[in-house]
Amino acid sequence: MIIYGRNAVREALRAGRRPVQEVWATKRVAGEDWLQGVKVHLADGGQIEQRAEAPDHQGIAARVGAYPYADPNALLRGEAPFLVALDELQDVQNLGAIIRTAETAGADGVVICERRAAEVTPAVCKASAGAVEHLPVARVGNLADFLIRAKERNVWCYGAAGEARTSYTDVDWRGGVCIVLGAEGKGLRRRVAETCDDLVSLPMQGRIESLNVSATGAILLYTALQARLRP
Amino acid sequence: MIIYGRNAVREALRAGRRPVQEVWATKRVAGEDWLQGVKVHLADGGQIEQRAEAPDHQGIAARVGAYPYADPNALLRGEAPFLVALDELQDVQNLGAIIRTAETAGADGVVICERRAAEVTPAVCKASAGAVEHLPVARVGNLADFLIRAKERNVWCYGAAGEARTSYTDVDWRGGVCIVLGAEGKGLRRRVAETCDDLVSLPMQGRIESLNVSATGAILLYTALQARLRP
Repeated sequence: MIIYGRNAVREALRAGRRPVQEVWATKRVAGEDWLQGVKVHLADGGQIEQRAEAPDHQGIAARVGAYPYADPNALLRGEAPFLVALDELQDVQNLGAIIRTAETAGADGVVICERRAAEVTPAVCKASAGAVEHLPVARVGNLADFLIRAKERNVWCYGAAGEARTSYTDVDWRGGVCIVLGAEGKGLRRRVAETCDDLVSLPMQGRIESLNVSATGAILLYTALQARLRP
Repeated sequence: MIIYGRNAVREALRAGRRPVQEVWATKRVAGEDWLQGVKVHLADGGQIEQRAEAPDHQGIAARVGAYPYADPNALLRGEAPFLVALDELQDVQNLGAIIRTAETAGADGVVICERRAAEVTPAVCKASAGAVEHLPVARVGNLADFLIRAKERNVWCYGAAGEARTSYTDVDWRGGVCIVLGAEGKGLRRRVAETCDDLVSLPMQGRIESLNVSATGAILLYTALQARLRP
């Protein structure tokens, strides 16, 4: 996989979870402190764009190993896991943004669907600002089945749904918790929603119908974090 | 201006704040309920892409009047304004996302910089899911001067800054409030930061350095909304 962008490459190097086989950078970027000691092929912007197959490479690209997906069951083994599960999320920008916020909120991992869903592509690595290199991301064949296993492990599953009667502020976010977010425009599939312990909604004060899924994720993740930080 | 995307065109029609002069849609989209009574030119996807100059048009585009920016001073006239100010924000996706969340959080308006900043382009209309058509967006030549005027009107200005000692949870978000967000990667300019009544930070639990500005905005907007909803 060819990843690109400063944060994406820097975090791959820092995390060391997958091999960084080759790095290409412009002369300017190659001179930056964080690349000291790293073998870099000098290249111009056009050559890097060709490698990256994307214009927003920020002057750096790297060939790295395949993305090391985590074992979903391993995410359930901790004391009080703090997880996010995404039900057939489609957009790579949203996936990257949610992984980034999950990492800064101290979540233990993100679970995505194997089929009909965005996976960890180079665009996701970039959009996550490299958070994918640190935070475990696991794929599951059947999300509802995963949530059932999570509940057996005392992980409470809360799905975000615009029509839900429970407010996201009325939930106990401490202990084992999984925030479940649906696809853009579609929301949660029925069996996934039914498997959740509860569905929660956010107040909508404006004249448009819905929040973006990555904004919803950010609000729920930090609400949960605040509850978890309280003594 | 040619706007595109279902929500962008629908909200322009619903809000009625600027003329919708012509609408082009694919046969499938033209048959949707919300377009009943609207004169639509049928076009194929390629023709709409040419008009929209963007591939993500969702089968619809419209020629509309120039974006009706609001008067920044009018935003300060209400009882207890709830505002967001963006200090030279660069990215149209972030601008659209913040305007969308500000609208759902019930904010009274968004203030952006006239220069060196993203403005309300068709991509912003799309990214905001049409929220720009409802929420007042005002441009100012000098953001620090605007914040000084806001403070004179009893609007408390809180800037987001990673290094701030005050937590965003330790602030009184009721009454007149302006959330001030900096540019991607750069944060707030010095004079803007110094003009704020206080700077607030969010906890960073992970191994990467920063939250995306639109995630930060979503978290602060909904934290403020929750405080404002409390009796």
